[in-house]
Amino acid sequence: MAKPYKLVGREFQPENTHIHVGDAVFGNGSFPVIAGPCAVESEKQVLSIAKSVKDAGATVFRGGAFKPRTSPYSFQGLGKKGLLFLAKVREETGLPIATEVMDIETFDLVEEYADLIQIGSRNMQNFSLLKRAGNSDKPILLKRGMAATLSEWLMAAEYILEQGNTRIILCERGIRTFVRHSRNTLDLSVVTAAKQESHLPVIVDPSHAAGVRDQVISLAYASAAMGADGLMIEVHNHPEDALSDGAQSLYPDQFFTAMEKINAIHAIISKK
Amino acid sequence: MAKPYKLVGREFQPENTHIHVGDAVFGNGSFPVIAGPCAVESEKQVLSIAKSVKDAGATVFRGGAFKPRTSPYSFQGLGKKGLLFLAKVREETGLPIATEVMDIETFDLVEEYADLIQIGSRNMQNFSLLKRAGNSDKPILLKRGMAATLSEWLMAAEYILEQGNTRIILCERGIRTFVRHSRNTLDLSVVTAAKQESHLPVIVDPSHAAGVRDQVISLAYASAAMGADGLMIEVHNHPEDALSDGAQSLYPDQFFTAMEKINAIHAIISKK
Amino acid sequence: MAKPYKLVGREFQPENTHIHVGDAVFGNGSFPVIAGPCAVESEKQVLSIAKSVKDAGATVFRGGAFKPRTSPYSFQGLGKKGLLFLAKVREETGLPIATEVMDIETFDLVEEYADLIQIGSRNMQNFSLLKRAGNSDKPILLKRGMAATLSEWLMAAEYILEQGNTRIILCERGIRTFVRHSRNTLDLSVVTAAKQESHLPVIVDPSHAAGVRDQVISLAYASAAMGADGLMIEVHNHPEDALSDGAQSLYPDQFFTAMEKINAIHAIISKK
Amino acid sequence: MAKPYKLVGREFQPENTHIHVGDAVFGNGSFPVIAGPCAVESEKQVLSIAKSVKDAGATVFRGGAFKPRTSPYSFQGLGKKGLLFLAKVREETGLPIATEVMDIETFDLVEEYADLIQIGSRNMQNFSLLKRAGNSDKPILLKRGMAATLSEWLMAAEYILEQGNTRIILCERGIRTFVRHSRNTLDLSVVTAAKQESHLPVIVDPSHAAGVRDQVISLAYASAAMGADGLMIEVHNHPEDALSDGAQSLYPDQFFTAMEKINAIHAIISKK
Repeated sequence: MAKPYKLVGREFQPENTHIHVGDAVFGNGSFPVIAGPCAVESEKQVLSIAKSVKDAGATVFRGGAFKPRTSPYSFQGLGKKGLLFLAKVREETGLPIATEVMDIETFDLVEEYADLIQIGSRNMQNFSLLKRAGNSDKPILLKRGMAATLSEWLMAAEYILEQGNTRIILCERGIRTFVRHSRNTLDLSVVTAAKQESHLPVIVDPSHAAGVRDQVISLAYASAAMGADGLMIEVHNHPEDALSDGAQSLYPDQFFTAMEKINAIHAIISKK
Repeated sequence: MAKPYKLVGREFQPENTHIHVGDAVFGNGSFPVIAGPCAVESEKQVLSIAKSVKDAGATVFRGGAFKPRTSPYSFQGLGKKGLLFLAKVREETGLPIATEVMDIETFDLVEEYADLIQIGSRNMQNFSLLKRAGNSDKPILLKRGMAATLSEWLMAAEYILEQGNTRIILCERGIRTFVRHSRNTLDLSVVTAAKQESHLPVIVDPSHAAGVRDQVISLAYASAAMGADGLMIEVHNHPEDALSDGAQSLYPDQFFTAMEKINAIHAIISKK
Repeated sequence: MAKPYKLVGREFQPENTHIHVGDAVFGNGSFPVIAGPCAVESEKQVLSIAKSVKDAGATVFRGGAFKPRTSPYSFQGLGKKGLLFLAKVREETGLPIATEVMDIETFDLVEEYADLIQIGSRNMQNFSLLKRAGNSDKPILLKRGMAATLSEWLMAAEYILEQGNTRIILCERGIRTFVRHSRNTLDLSVVTAAKQESHLPVIVDPSHAAGVRDQVISLAYASAAMGADGLMIEVHNHPEDALSDGAQSLYPDQFFTAMEKINAIHAIISKK
Repeated sequence: MAKPYKLVGREFQPENTHIHVGDAVFGNGSFPVIAGPCAVESEKQVLSIAKSVKDAGATVFRGGAFKPRTSPYSFQGLGKKGLLFLAKVREETGLPIATEVMDIETFDLVEEYADLIQIGSRNMQNFSLLKRAGNSDKPILLKRGMAATLSEWLMAAEYILEQGNTRIILCERGIRTFVRHSRNTLDLSVVTAAKQESHLPVIVDPSHAAGVRDQVISLAYASAAMGADGLMIEVHNHPEDALSDGAQSLYPDQFFTAMEKINAIHAIISKK
């Protein structure tokens, strides 16, 4: 059967796409880790967390300034002020910044500050947003939708590629199933399957899949063992006070310890 | 446990919300049917279908001018030209028009032509779009996301209500499951559950759930029997030539026959 | 693609199989309803319920003597004593008896008392049990497994047919999904799809799918509207005191009222 | 909320249960691997595979003599002859034998030959079989059902424990989801969650989850990284000729190479 996609497929480009974000490279066999809090809450918070995660070996900092929240009454993010805090993090630590864009209205603004622009799960088939991302000169982190098949995910990437932006990192973050012991079910098979079909790098976000801290660490190890091209993990200096996703955020020292094992596992997996 | 929503709940408003769209009323115990093709293809096409469905008893006409498609290479809709054809349908038949809006950029345009603005499944948690819909003076048809819980769906409606637009019709259209004999699995229980929780009308779209014509008709009967507040069904004059969703579109004469049984079932269900 | 089954398919037998259970006929266009409590609790209980459901128009009585329960500490059924009470029901009311068999060890015993032997969802792929059922001279009610595809369900029926027992009634009872507003998600599309593929009658059990009484009634109407070949519904004289499944059992007077609408809907659906 | 189970919980027994099967120990922090073909096909086949997997470091041999197959027309296993071949494997290699039991009728026979008795996914809620297993003096490998919640799985183990058999190994093997790029979706979170709730060892079968060889190896690494108590993997000397599950069986040399990495990952994970 003919594949429904073109540019995203291995048939179009057999070799892996390498994507540079600051000093991090996704897709070249290394294992960059994106870390930071769910939401930017204050300058002090992001600077503190950024220093911790940099020490632990993270090479991209994440933090949300515009937050898609299930409830209109939940904290919606600091908006432009949050982006300014993120710029400060970059200035002080040298870490490139990954942050989410929620709509076309704020795309220019996010694009100005971000080194890696995230399109979230709920927007994976927001086709207008995908087209705008396709006209950006910044790399895109495209999260898989909670109910998206591999084919639908790759087609979403195709929307971006088709507009001319070839720098796309795919990110698995868990699918919705009947399971109740975790928030979502991390689908690690999709890492292998997506990398077979596509030349794009595939990373994993274990934080949103698990929803609880203990599972996050183990799923991070599993993601490294699976042969993913990197990780995105939520780390917070005071998870108990976090304005969102506290229960799934790692403490900085947990993250530090985890990074050692993550790197050791990646080294084993990478051996020929 | 406290409900996560406020305005959408029966606690806030015990009595049913009635929503008028042309002569159709949703939520008052009647059973209006929205019918038409998946996509507007030509003036001749929509006029022909509109006359058929009006004869059969449909009271709202549907047709997509902006089409969210999994592939960037699929027909994306006629855009503004499609809206003009829909306006022509309204002029000639008197039927009000339901059509989908995909983004904020084209919202003003769609709002100008539509009598009922549809937000599709893939955009159910496009919160920026929901907020814009909340500032519209047109009623909104909010489809349930393929992996949305009842609570998430109601929270999406809450985003619209919270901005001031109280005219929202909820539309169940099938959820994603392991099943392969239909495109999605129509979740009819959600009709009962949503109506218990919320004062908003709840209708059913059996066409997208089924994906195949034979199932659509039976699911339409089942939806009427379930006590829904109406239906949205795809009808095409030449399904075999349709630019999208041909396999699930009814032939006009099938729709005509089905409407008689739909109305008869609704009459039985409505009896005290 | 070649179908994986043989005897169960329309290719093997184009015309519907009719299955007689007492005076009820499944598969001939009529709409027999099987009703009764989840579990047999006492002679008085089953006699009382049986009289009610017979008055309402049910033509087969159901009640479990051997109960598959998630917990070993839950009521496991009255066993042989329960079967004797069921025999008493048949004697006093003339209603044939449907009851579940859980294993080969008790098959002979159940076979002796039952007019219709139920194989439950959890045993749908208990192949040893299916083979034993295939050697019975009693008709079999084969419930769909909670995660069974249509093909797997039909293959389970094929196991029975292949041993020589051609009297099988398929029963949809809900599939496991991410949904939380109902116990399972009733998959009504499977009625249409199964009847297209197979000549066997297909009935629906809305009680186990819903898990809550209000949904059960509406789903029963929907099942009739869907064109199923009958229903199986839980009715209890004192649901609040039921030893199992109380929350989803109808009160006798609810069932009585529902039966009128069920029959009226079936009459509409059956009209040419 | 009170836990529905008793004996299976950490509240009842805080420390890990250790289960000895030959020289392998499950639950004590080691990482035993069970390997072998899906089905026993011939004496020569099992001896050849057994030698290979032993060389690679497997400490339990698996092979099915009684095979639960979706179709009655598929190879159903060699039955007693298969058990005799497995006994020969034990005699020649010293490896203990894990094999599946499908029903009570053949339980005594399987019990006589097996060192570890497997209850398959489809029988996870075959309560009569569970009770029989509870009266066995052999350890039980209890696979999770394809649609089983953690609680249902633990309750199935409770059925066995309640009868007196305390030697149970839980085995995750993938759940049924909407995903189509793998046969099932391996739910690695359940390893963490099950070990938190219960003192029983939890192993992973990546072969049935994946359904394709390339994914199996990566999922095996991921399972080791996740902190599971062991693995069960299908290995076949001629996968292309296997009578069942060929596509997901590893070649012996693949398994050999994989075992080195599996052990290296386990060593990293086990470090304090």
